[in-house]
This record gives sequence, structure tokens and C-alpha cells, in this order.
Amino acid sequence: MDKILRINMSAPGNPEIKIDSLGDYAGLGGRGLTSAIISKEVPPTCHPLGADNKLVIAPGILSGTAAAMSGRISVGCKSPLTGGIKEANAGGQGAQVLARLGYAAIVLEGKPEKKTLYKIFVNKDGVEITKDDSLKMTGNYDTVDRLKSEFGDKIACISIGQAGEMMLGAATVAFTNMELRPARHAGRGGVGAVMGSKGVKAIVLDDAGMKMRSPKDPEKFKAANKTFVAGLRKHPVTGEGLPAYGTNVLVNVVNEAGGFPTNNFKDGRFDGASKISGEALAEMEKERGANPTHGCHRGCVIRCSGIFHDKQGNYLTKQPEYETVWSHGANCGIDDLDAIAMLDRLDDDYGLDTIEMGAAIGVAMDAGLAAFGDAEAAIDLVKEVGKGTPLGRILGSGAGMTGKVFGVERVPVVKNQAMPAYDPRAVQGMGVTYATSTMGADHTAGYCVTANLLGVGGTVNPLSPKGQIELSRDLQIATAAIDSTGMCLFIAFAILDQEETFNAMVEMINAFTGLSMTAGDVSDLGKKILTMERDFNFQAGFTAKDDRLPDYFLKESLPPHDVTFSVSDADLDTVFNF
Amino acid sequence: MDKILRINMSAPGNPEIKIDSLGDYAGLGGRGLTSAIISKEVPPTCHPLGADNKLVIAPGILSGTAAAMSGRISVGCKSPLTGGIKEANAGGQGAQVLARLGYAAIVLEGKPEKKTLYKIFVNKDGVEITKDDSLKMTGNYDTVDRLKSEFGDKIACISIGQAGEMMLGAATVAFTNMELRPARHAGRGGVGAVMGSKGVKAIVLDDAGMKMRSPKDPEKFKAANKTFVAGLRKHPVTGEGLPAYGTNVLVNVVNEAGGFPTNNFKDGRFDGASKISGEALAEMEKERGANPTHGCHRGCVIRCSGIFHDKQGNYLTKQPEYETVWSHGANCGIDDLDAIAMLDRLDDDYGLDTIEMGAAIGVAMDAGLAAFGDAEAAIDLVKEVGKGTPLGRILGSGAGMTGKVFGVERVPVVKNQAMPAYDPRAVQGMGVTYATSTMGADHTAGYCVTANLLGVGGTVNPLSPKGQIELSRDLQIATAAIDSTGMCLFIAFAILDQEETFNAMVEMINAFTGLSMTAGDVSDLGKKILTMERDFNFQAGFTAKDDRLPDYFLKESLPPHDVTFSVSDADLDTVFNF
Repeated sequence: MDKILRINMSAPGNPEIKIDSLGDYAGLGGRGLTSAIISKEVPPTCHPLGADNKLVIAPGILSGTAAAMSGRISVGCKSPLTGGIKEANAGGQGAQVLARLGYAAIVLEGKPEKKTLYKIFVNKDGVEITKDDSLKMTGNYDTVDRLKSEFGDKIACISIGQAGEMMLGAATVAFTNMELRPARHAGRGGVGAVMGSKGVKAIVLDDAGMKMRSPKDPEKFKAANKTFVAGLRKHPVTGEGLPAYGTNVLVNVVNEAGGFPTNNFKDGRFDGASKISGEALAEMEKERGANPTHGCHRGCVIRCSGIFHDKQGNYLTKQPEYETVWSHGANCGIDDLDAIAMLDRLDDDYGLDTIEMGAAIGVAMDAGLAAFGDAEAAIDLVKEVGKGTPLGRILGSGAGMTGKVFGVERVPVVKNQAMPAYDPRAVQGMGVTYATSTMGADHTAGYCVTANLLGVGGTVNPLSPKGQIELSRDLQIATAAIDSTGMCLFIAFAILDQEETFNAMVEMINAFTGLSMTAGDVSDLGKKILTMERDFNFQAGFTAKDDRLPDYFLKESLPPHDVTFSVSDADLDTVFNF
Repeated sequence: MDKILRINMSAPGNPEIKIDSLGDYAGLGGRGLTSAIISKEVPPTCHPLGADNKLVIAPGILSGTAAAMSGRISVGCKSPLTGGIKEANAGGQGAQVLARLGYAAIVLEGKPEKKTLYKIFVNKDGVEITKDDSLKMTGNYDTVDRLKSEFGDKIACISIGQAGEMMLGAATVAFTNMELRPARHAGRGGVGAVMGSKGVKAIVLDDAGMKMRSPKDPEKFKAANKTFVAGLRKHPVTGEGLPAYGTNVLVNVVNEAGGFPTNNFKDGRFDGASKISGEALAEMEKERGANPTHGCHRGCVIRCSGIFHDKQGNYLTKQPEYETVWSHGANCGIDDLDAIAMLDRLDDDYGLDTIEMGAAIGVAMDAGLAAFGDAEAAIDLVKEVGKGTPLGRILGSGAGMTGKVFGVERVPVVKNQAMPAYDPRAVQGMGVTYATSTMGADHTAGYCVTANLLGVGGTVNPLSPKGQIELSRDLQIATAAIDSTGMCLFIAFAILDQEETFNAMVEMINAFTGLSMTAGDVSDLGKKILTMERDFNFQAGFTAKDDRLPDYFLKESLPPHDVTFSVSDADLDTVFNF
């Protein structure tokens, strides 16, 4: 994993392939690498859909190794949604396969002169790029089926659906999972639109003939991995809650806490919560012969993903994640898991961020386009995107755009990116992360739900501003570092609570790379990444004014706790004082 | 004109009327007053469509007096289009009538809880506010007809069309002209959307029983006015070109200079220019029994407006302005004056900024929604706005939004406001104004066409960056001051070239107010206004990065001169060093 595959889509005639050494980027992976390349090579004020932007796809430092949980991949660019730097992170097989093929990153550069679609095939023998306009406006599921029939079923695919081709702000980059289904997505910030602007429909990876990456110190590595896995299995969240119910285990927790945004962030509790909870979902999956406990990539030991079957017992989609169940469920007043699963399937197929889409539909419902709770109308609205109608393009451009076009004042976005499934008034730590993250409103950037609601890594009162700045700061630093390792962020539950699990992770990195990193070095890496990202955003024109929640979260109190967001602007401005 | 009419639309039950003294705002008028009120009373980071924004409608210092050319009115708010401060300026009868009624400003505050439409009636006896949902989604022409039948034909109307009710970014506030037609618009920045958000459909002004405002020194005032009028009549632009052909006299001039943006800013010359020139338009109007020489308000001596009849000889719309003939003409490849006039009529009726709409349609044509030159398709696209379809809402939200929703990279906006009819590559002084104006891309904010193309107020090579900063700076300062007097900006041609005309204008202000302003004081007023506006924008989150043209103007050269915009960023950052 010591080279970068660069493809210049602007090259006259045909795209130009170049294999670069890592050079200055040596030692970086995942988010650390995507953000370094974007920071160094992309002009911060360029048009996100123009030739100057780049799309960087980078597995983490430990991806492609035997390390458990190392199957995460980062997709970076200047975001068409936020206008700032973006790293969107996905599971699936892409990270492992790309890393084994020896690539630290694929970088798509330039922009083809004519509107043509390309597919890229990478295997042990090299790289092939072919025009293929027959794939135009096909969904991710169809696209992958066609790629399978052309390249066989030992591949991993990276693709965009219709939304990416239309270059919409909510467009994702899809990664196939172990069953070769395009169900894992680098979802946020419109990374799929940037891939679409490059004219690349799909990247097919085949690692046949390539070996697992081998550590500098195999014995030490193996031992550390064993301790690490034991730690994950021991912790109640990673060892019990997530495997049994998936991320959707959170519905009851967050609803009980009064932080489950309902009907476009008007209430913190949803009457229909029990009907869409993780418990209800797992039960339904089991009844229909599907599977609530499933890994999204090789080497996953938490197995929080799952399989969802329709009423007839046929595969419909992956088990919808908590964020999706919330966005298409409570946020739109919908308590029907079959409808939510259908929305998940459509989003995955068109290549749409489920968080952004659920938020956009919530805003559209406030504008009177459909009634809250009308599942059929919500499905029809998402189908508009697939059809490429003007209405579909508005919704697919995200909640912020939908609010602007329909004149809605209450729009839950920061830096124009929709808020996820935790109301910042009832989970104030999340409010700090939403406001200040370099990524726009993003739960994964600093997941304060840990200490705010779950008692993981300490306890901080979710309804009070006290202690939230420090909590968000520490988590944002740790997350930036973890997102560079290729490790799934869910290891955080165990490494926050169990020192030996954290040490085992650092030990694994050291045994693999031959370095001797300390906990302090990990934190320094996180700070370095955040600083780089913030600097890019400042150069792109962001100011402290962009590190704010929409006004109404400070004025409108949220039932049932009747609380407003009360972290002061002055305090928000100290999050990056490290 | 010593009081402010404030109407609080948030008041429980019914809107609350309050008549305030001018207080700290004494001595201010027009843009000086709107920008002072917005700066002082509106939180810069508030939502433009929320209760915290205010809509301020203010005649100028000399409006309602016998001063020639004093019929301009300013509409200010935080702009839903740019997110910054906004002053949009209009002719028509509103300024004179409101000033004679004694109001320095009407301020609409708050936001009604329920979606209800109100009409406001102001006469010598006071103010009346009535709910009137029967006006919902009526165009400006119908609205005024209904108001006429209710209040008689001695009124002046201020109203919004469907676009304002839908709160679209290109929505205008319409003012009736001398024939009581809603043909003069405060066009830019979505001021109509803010009026829509306040639930106010129309303001009816009746000055029966009110007198012309009288000066402190009537004799001196009369004499100064006489010299001033003589100066305007003497200057070739205000005395000949504008009266004969209207603003559209510019088509041939700007086209010849290679700065007439064609097909969404791809060329600086338009093959069909002669078919849509001011000369052709005036000829057509005369043939059809219409009138190319007409004043938009009482007391106008330039008379650059006009009347346009359709082929059957019936009134269709006012004489389309140069900006409209360009935006709906050359910018969309359309060389048919009848089609352009129809687009003008539709824009006026729906209440849409013709510049923003033409730019949006140009972008839509680049996205493939219609072919350049297809006039029928352009008319259909504007009709979508009237119907309130999703496509109509996208276009009505402006060029920037249209570009985002349709994934178009080449979008001619600054601060999200569309550029007017001078390509900044071939008229580099205008590029400086577009980039740096507090208003977003705005030609009126510092009309460098004067010295760049017309040889008025000096001569500066339009293709070179040299001297443009100073030119734009001086004009932006002068304009901010003129926009406060209620004077039509077209007096600038004469006062730039003829010292005695400038002095007469200052003399008029002094004779009217009893002050003893100098030329330096006029300049100080302009600087004070600009500083206030820039400060608001900074507090709203703007930075120097917002004072830039889109990248492609720096990279793509414009035929026929094959020139790019070459004023440096460092120089742009010095425009406000005064």
C-alpha cells in the first residue's frame, strides 16, 4: 500500500493513468490521507464540480491486514453540499480489497470534456478504463449486477447511482458488502456528485492473486489483535447491543432520552418509536428468515449490520441503520418499518444519503408537499429523484436547498449539511459537534452520545451545556485519528471505556508499521487532521459564523424537556483550542 | 417626512401599527436609511425569512419635493438571495407619494403565525390593515386592478406577485408608475420574498390632501433645481440618448465593445444585437403607436422609460430595460423583441427580477433544459414560476440555485446574485464592482461602464485592470450617497461630467434641508453607508473570499477580445480602503 493511483479525466482523448509513490503522504491513511491530499492539491475556492476538485478514495492504515474491524474507507473532496472539505466514510469490502491491491488511494482528477461515463477496472495486473454509456442512469443495484456479469463475482465495486450522475448534493459513493450488494455508502456531503462530475460511474476492484498485507512484527500484531477483539466482545455495546439489534438499538435509548427528532425536529419523542425500534426490527428480520447479525466487511467482529427481507421473504435491503430509521421514520412521522426499508433500498439504489434525504423530506413536509406520517408520499418523493424530475433534483440537493426553494425557515442544517438523529437541544454535546465539525452537521465527527446518553467514556448531562465543549473536542480529535486507521468507529465504545483495548489498538498499529506511537501521538494525529481541515475551510471562506446551529434551536424549546440549545457562541469558538 | 411607520406582523391577533419618530435616523433617507435600520435592528445571522428580519421601504431625502428626478425609493432587508444586507431601488410613484404622506420609511417587522395575506392602506388619516386571502397567488397586474377598484385610481401601489408569496430568491417588490401599472420593481436580492414572509401582499398609498414637501429656502431650491435640470438636458446621455432610446440604447454600445454577455456569458458579442437594440425597440414602439419617451414618475426630466405595445397595438408592458433585453435576449440567445417584451411582462406580473431570471434561464439552457435561442421555451420556463411548479421554484430562486440543482459549473453570480449585462472580462471595472459590492453582483452599485465604455467621468481602458479599483471605489461611494437622496442614478452621467450640475444637486439638498453640505460631506455619507453595509456582511459571515468573481472568469477567455478578468485578489481587497 505504497502507491497512489491517479486518473486524470481531463487528459485529451482518454483518461490518463499515473501510478505515483506516496511521497510526502507516506504514513497516512483514510481520512488523514484524503484530507492531506485535498488540503494540499485542491484550491479551497474552486467549484466543487469543476476540474480543480479531486475525489480521493483511501483505505485506512490497517485496511487489508488481519486486524479486526479495519474495513473502513474514506472518500474525500471539496464538498458540493457544504463548500468545505469533506471526508465521508464507508464500510463494505472496498477498503480491504483496495489495500490488498497495494493502493493507498485512488485520486480522480480533472473533468472530461464531454458527458461520457467511464468504468475503471483495477486488478493485480494494472488499471483499465473503458467508456460505457450503457450504464447511464442505472441504479447501483443494476450497475453492480452488470459489472458482476462482466467481471465475475470475486470483485468489490465502488459506484454511483442516478443521484451521482445528476451531481446532486445528497449523492453518495456506494461500496459493495460481502454479498456484493451496493449497500454501504460514503453518504455525506455529496461525494457521489464529485464522482459524477468526473464522469466515473464505477470502479471495479479484483484482488485475486494479492495477499493480505503483512505486519513488521507478526507475533506482536497477532497478540494485540487478540486482546483487541476480546475487548470488543467484552464491552456491552460492541459485544451485545450492536450485534443483537444493530445501530437501531438506539431508537429506544434516544427516544427515552427525549432527543429523538420527530416531525422535522419539533418533538424529542416519537409516538411510534416502539414500532421502529431495533428490537422490533430484529424480531421482524428473524421472522422473515433474514438476519439481524451480520458483518459489512471481512474481519468485522461486531457485526452490527443485517439483512432485511420484505413481507414475501425476499431480500429488499440491508438492515436499515439507526440514522435511516430515524430520518425516514420519526423525522417524517413514519412508523412503518417496511416503508422505511423501501426508502433505504431506493436511497441505496439511486445513491442518496439517507440522513440528508430524510431531513429533506421532513422539510418538504413542513412546506406542505406531503403530510407527516404519509409513508406512501415519502416513497413517491424519493422516487422523484430516481426519475430526475425537478422536484427530485431539489430534494436530492439536500435539506438546505429544499428549504430555500420552498421558503421554509426551520431547516436543520449546519454548513448546509443535514443534522442526524439526535436533537441538539436534548443532546447538547451533539449540538457542539454539529456546530463545529469541519464536515457540517455530522454525528460521527464527535459522537457525544457516548457520555451524554450511554455512560460510555464518562457521564455528561445531555441537557446542560456544561462539559460539552471538552467532550466534543476530545471526541473530534480521537475520531479524526480513528478515521485514519481504517478501523470502524464503533471500536470507540470499547477503547473509551477499556484502557487495555485502546492500548491493544495502538500496539497493533505499531506492530504493523514498525513505529512506536504513543497515545499522545494518536491524539496529535487527530489534531493535525482537524487543523488541516479547518484551515481548508477558512481558506474556502468559512468563519466562526459557520460554526453555529440554526437560530431556532436557540429559541424554540423541545418537548418533552422543553429545553433550548444553550452552549454559548463564545464557548463554541474554543472547541479547537488545543 | 419625520416619522417611521412600523408594522409588527407578529403581534398576537392582528398586526400592530406604531408611528415612531425618526430619532437616531434623522437626516437619513433612501439607502442610507434602509441600511442604517437593517444594520442596527436586524441580527446579521438571522434567517432572512424569519421574524427577526425587517423589510424597510424608504423614499429618498428629496422625494416628495419639487426636485427633478427625486422619485426613487429604496427597499432594504437581509437578502434571502445573498444572505447579506440588501438595498434594492425602484422608480415609479411610491417614493413621491410615501414622502408626501410624511413617512421616511415603512418598516415591516415580525412574521404572522398563520399563512394569511394582508393589505395595508395608508392615507392622510392614518393606516389600515386588512386580511385579504382573495389576493392569494394573483399577479401584480391583477392585484393592482383589484386595488384600483377598491381604492380608486389616485393611489400608488407597492405589491408582490406569486414569486414573493412563494418567497423565492428572485422575487421583487413592485411599484406602480404614473399610469398605475406595476412596472417598476425593486428587483434584486429577493426583497419580494421578505415582503412575502411578512404576509403583506400590497401596500396602497393615497396622498390626497397632502402637499408637496416644502424646502427651508424655497428660492435657492428653485434656482438650484433649474440649474440641475438644465444640466441634465445638456448632457448627451441624459438629454439625448436615454430619452430617445431608453436604457436599451446600450445594446449597440456594449455589443460593439465586446462586453455583451451572450449565451450564458460565452461570448461578448451577439449576432442578433441589432434586432434588439434601443434603436430597433424605439422604432417598433413608434410604429405600433406606443411611446419610447416616458417618465416612470412625476418630476422625471430624463424620461428613459417607455411603453411597449404588442403586434395588435395593445399595451403589453413597459419598454423593456437594457438589462432585461440583455438577460432574456442575448444571454439566452434570443433576438426577438416581442418574446423579450412578453418575458418582461411575465416577470413584472409574477414579481421577478428580470436580471436574475434571464441569468437563471441561461444556466438552465446550459443544463440542457432548452436550447439557446428558443424563445418559446424561455417563455414556458418563466410561466413555470407563475404556476409554482418545482421547476418554476428552482428558476425563481435564481441563477445560483438553478446551477446547483442542475449541476452546472459555469454560473455567473457573486454572493449568489446574478451578474447583469456587462461581461466583467471585457468591462473589468464592472468586474470590480460585481466582486466587491456589498450587494452581490450589481451594476448600479458602481457603474464603471461610465469611464470604461462611455467616456463619462474620464476614460479607463475596459480591457485592462489598471485604474479599475479607484474607479469602482469612487463610483460605489458616490452611488451610496445618491441612492440616499431619492435621485435617479442616471443623474450620475451629468454630475460626473459637469461640475455645475453636481453643485446644483448639493445646493438643492442644502436649500431643502437647511444644511450646508459640501462635496466632501456627500462622499463621507457614501463611505459611511458602505462601511455600515460591509460590517453587516462581515457579521453575517462574509469574508474577502466572497469578494471574488467565479473562477471561470479568470480562466476562460471571452471572445472577441479573448480576455480574462485580470484584476488581482490583492487589489480587490483594497476597494474599501478609504
